[in-house]
Formats: sequence, C-alpha cells, structure tokens
Amino acid sequence: MLHTLRVAIVGPGAIGLFYGSQLARAGATVRLLARSDLAVLRARGVIVHGDHPAYTVAPPAIEAFATPAEVGPVDLVVITLKNTANDRFHDLVGPLLGPDTAVLTLQNGLGADERLAALFGAGRVLGGLSFIACTRVAPGEVECFHPGTITLGEFSGPSGDRARSVATWFERAGIPTTVTDRLAEARWLKLVWNIPFNGLSIASGGLSTDRILADPKLASEVRALMDEVADGARALGYQISEEFIQSQIDVTPKLGGYKPSSLLDWQAGRDVEIEAIWGEPLRRALGAGARTARLALLYALVRSLCVSRPPSP
Amino acid sequence: MLHTLRVAIVGPGAIGLFYGSQLARAGATVRLLARSDLAVLRARGVIVHGDHPAYTVAPPAIEAFATPAEVGPVDLVVITLKNTANDRFHDLVGPLLGPDTAVLTLQNGLGADERLAALFGAGRVLGGLSFIACTRVAPGEVECFHPGTITLGEFSGPSGDRARSVATWFERAGIPTTVTDRLAEARWLKLVWNIPFNGLSIASGGLSTDRILADPKLASEVRALMDEVADGARALGYQISEEFIQSQIDVTPKLGGYKPSSLLDWQAGRDVEIEAIWGEPLRRALGAGARTARLALLYALVRSLCVSRPPSP
Repeated sequence: MLHTLRVAIVGPGAIGLFYGSQLARAGATVRLLARSDLAVLRARGVIVHGDHPAYTVAPPAIEAFATPAEVGPVDLVVITLKNTANDRFHDLVGPLLGPDTAVLTLQNGLGADERLAALFGAGRVLGGLSFIACTRVAPGEVECFHPGTITLGEFSGPSGDRARSVATWFERAGIPTTVTDRLAEARWLKLVWNIPFNGLSIASGGLSTDRILADPKLASEVRALMDEVADGARALGYQISEEFIQSQIDVTPKLGGYKPSSLLDWQAGRDVEIEAIWGEPLRRALGAGARTARLALLYALVRSLCVSRPPSP
Repeated sequence: MLHTLRVAIVGPGAIGLFYGSQLARAGATVRLLARSDLAVLRARGVIVHGDHPAYTVAPPAIEAFATPAEVGPVDLVVITLKNTANDRFHDLVGPLLGPDTAVLTLQNGLGADERLAALFGAGRVLGGLSFIACTRVAPGEVECFHPGTITLGEFSGPSGDRARSVATWFERAGIPTTVTDRLAEARWLKLVWNIPFNGLSIASGGLSTDRILADPKLASEVRALMDEVADGARALGYQISEEFIQSQIDVTPKLGGYKPSSLLDWQAGRDVEIEAIWGEPLRRALGAGARTARLALLYALVRSLCVSRPPSP
C-alpha cells in the first residue's frame, strides 16, 4: 500500500466533497477539480456536518483547481461526476494521468467503466459503488447522514494489490470498503434497487419510496421490475439470488419517505442519469435475450418525463 | 322496427346530449336524466354546434328530469355515464325499465355490459362503441366536430331484430351504425388504441398523441402495448389482425395534437375510467394466461397518478 497518495476528485458534488475531505484527513494529498464551488473551496475548504461534530478541511490539506492541467498527474483519480457529463472524460481526466495513475469511477449505473477503458486503457480502470447518504447543502458544504460503504474492484480482471491499496485508503478515511472480483455483477446488484425505485419515483410524478410501497399495485411492479432486472443480469452471466432481491424490498421501508437521487435531480431540474440507470441496462439485457417489457416502458417514460417535461410542482 | 321510441339518456355529458338531440330530431321521445345541467335543459333544451349550423333541440322535443322515477319506463335506455359511476346503475336504471326495455351501454372499456347483465338480466343488455369527437362546452351545450359512428350488438348472443332496430334509429339520427355479433371483440379492438394512447398520455405527464409518436421510444412502446393488448384479446378467443393493429398506429397522426379523453379528464381533475380501460382488461388477459408486463406497469402508474397525484400544470 502507498504511504502517500495523490488523489484528484473529478466532480466534487456531495459525494466527491465528502470522500475528498475524509481522504485528506486520512493523510492523502487531495486536489478537487472544482467549478461553481471554486472560490469557496480555495478560501475556506470543505465543511462537513451530519450526525457528528462539524469539521472543516481547509487548504492546504485539500486544494481546489479550475482546470485539470493545474491539478496535474496524480496517483488516483476518483470520478464522482454525473454520468450525463461522461462526454467530458477526455478533457477532464486526460491531464490527470501519469504512467501509473489509476482511475476509479464511483458513478452510478452502467457505461462509465467501459468509456474510461476505451479512452485511457482498461488496465487503468477501477469501478466502485458508493452506498452513502449525503447532500451538498451549500457551496463547499456537505451534510453526511451516513458515511455508508464502498464496494470497488478492477474493471478488467480480478482485483489485486492496487484495488486493495485503494480500499485501504478509503478504510483509513472512515468508509468501510469491500474489494470485489465481480465489479459488473456488483453494478447489476445495485441496479436491482435503483431501476425500480428511481424510475417509479419519477414516473409516478414524484412519489417517495414509502408511498410507492404503500400502493399495492406499484409495490407489485417494484418486485416485477426487480425480477426483470435480475433476469437480465443472469442472462449476462451474473448471479443474483432470490434472497438478494427480497432483501432489496425489505430494506426499503427503513428508509422512510426517501426520495431517490434521480427524483431529486428531476424535481430540481438537473440532469437525470437516464442512460446509465435505465438505457444501458435495457440495451444489455435485450442484447442477452432477456425479457425487458417493464424496463423498456419505464425507460421510455422516464426519458420522456426528463427530456421533455418539467416535474410536477 | 319501432315507429316510435321512448329513449332515456343516462349520463348526459357531451355524447349523451348529442345522441339525445339527434334521436329527438329523428322523431324519438327523448328524456334526459340530468343533474348539473337540469335547469338549462328544462328552460332551453340542448344547443349543438360544430362543423354545421348550430341548432337547438328544445322541450318538449327533448325533456330533462332530475330522477329516474320521473322519467319512468322507456323502450331504450342509453347509458353514456362514466364507468366510474357504474355503482349507481341500480338506482339510475332500475326505474326506467318496463317488461321489454332494452339497455344500451355506450361506455368505454370493459365491465359495464356484465354489470348491467348481472343487475337486470343479460337479455336486456346491448353494448356499443361510440367513435365520436364532441365536447360539452357549457351546460346543455355541445360542440360536435364529427358525428362519428357507432358499433353495437347484443351482449348475450348474436344480434337480431332488436339490435337492428336500435341501429336504424341511430342511422335515422345521422350516425352511421354497424351491428356486430361480436360485441366483446369490438370492445377489445377499441382498447388496442385506448390502452396505449390514453395511458401513455397520462403517464408521460400530459403528452398529446402527436408528441407521443414524435418520441421514438414512446412510439415503440405504443406498438408494444398494442401487441400486448392484442395478445390478451387473442388469449380470450377474439380475433385481432396485425393489419388492424397497424391501422391503429397509422390513423393516429391524422388526429394531430389530440388529447385522449382520459388525459382531459385527468388534467381537469375529473374521474378517469381506470378500471374499465386498464384494470379490467389486465385482469382478463392475465386470467387467460397472456403476457401483461407492460399493461400491468401502465395500469399501476396511471392508477397512482390519477388516485394520488394532481396532474402537471
């Protein structure tokens, strides 16, 4: 494991700011590629609060830059951009790469791993799933309700020392992190929840997860969509058990009146990760010959609602 | 054929007012069971305009009553209520029945025929489909863009003299009318269009038919839903050809920026015929073992949007 780590965070929204702050506190050299928060981050750094005393990580422990050229090459690039910005990978990530730089995308859904691999070589790419509840409440300011966990792994083969080293840094930063040899499968496991709940919360006009489950017919569609996603994953060779599917239903009431991130994005007029969460899984499941009727309809509706319609008031 | 006909119209919205006026002009004795329009109808009768010189049908050619007891027994009851009011059949229709009264429901979707048959005997029941474009623009006032056509038939067997006699009265009233021996099949044929377009217009947050078809992914879902509805109908023993399905796609662009009636109802905060158009067809197709994934999801979404959510602005 590296005793020092130079990290660049690309896409410092809530998750990027939180991980960046925690990694900086753990001793990494953290450079944020910032846009709207740039002035605040330079002047004051990041404020993190939640169910713990608030703390500030100020420069030079964490530094913000306007361009990737100013950041320069690092050991690890952590990408927390929205998938809808993935056409900027070349410009944003390219200048951050030295000969041995690893690129870890913690983005949702499907597609980013492959896109990074195509641009920069599959050998550089790590993918991860971030389970976390945090919100950017003001420029450079994050509220983190739960630091959650990370699952990460190599994109192009079994995970080895590099993946374990990255995981150790996140662990040191206070985020329990699991290394997987089955990154693609892990992505599908997360989609089992995200596809139905993020999708139905938008297509229903804005229902939170508790209200979706309180409607027996929508709840039944949640389960049917989960089954369809699992069938798609299985057709692609991944393993998803019935117990796992049931666990995704069972865990949801504990979230209370939870609004999935896609719903929050839609209601705030921000880009929704339509292709990563619905479009790309649909295309892959369809390509593997799986049944995709519900997913296809949900994708078409969410896409139409996000592209052509404002959210409900 | 009867040389005189006493008709009661139950549910005098746009369609009921139009058919009542036309039947009165054709020589029938027409009695409207009215509620909100009662005073206007009594004072002035019905005004009809559209792509023809406006005309008024005034009392005593057409008469309005507040209760079915005042209307009393007639030869033919024509039901143009919303399906959402079908739990009032017993009270509204019962007092209109003499020994030989026929009951014709021109309501949308599935379920009304059976409900009337259960209440009043299958032998009384005729069902029909009304293809018409008209709107109630003010109390007792209808704008009719196209008188359209009617298809009607006996509920409980082949159509005979009675169905032909009723059809002749509608023909005399200026509405081309076809008698069918396959009422249930005819209802499914109409659902091939209504289920996808009425449903997607609501689930998309308010898109008119031209905008649905302008979105390639929604257009593809229209076709997939039509195929599913047709499969359900076939599983129940009805015949729906590929050419018919294609014709339902092909006819739609000619409607321009058309808003299906369910969308108008939803946007106006009125009851939507959820069970007749989506729920009952779903249950029957499911019972016949047909695949119903898209229909089930669409039903759950439309139901949720109509029951628990206001329409988009």
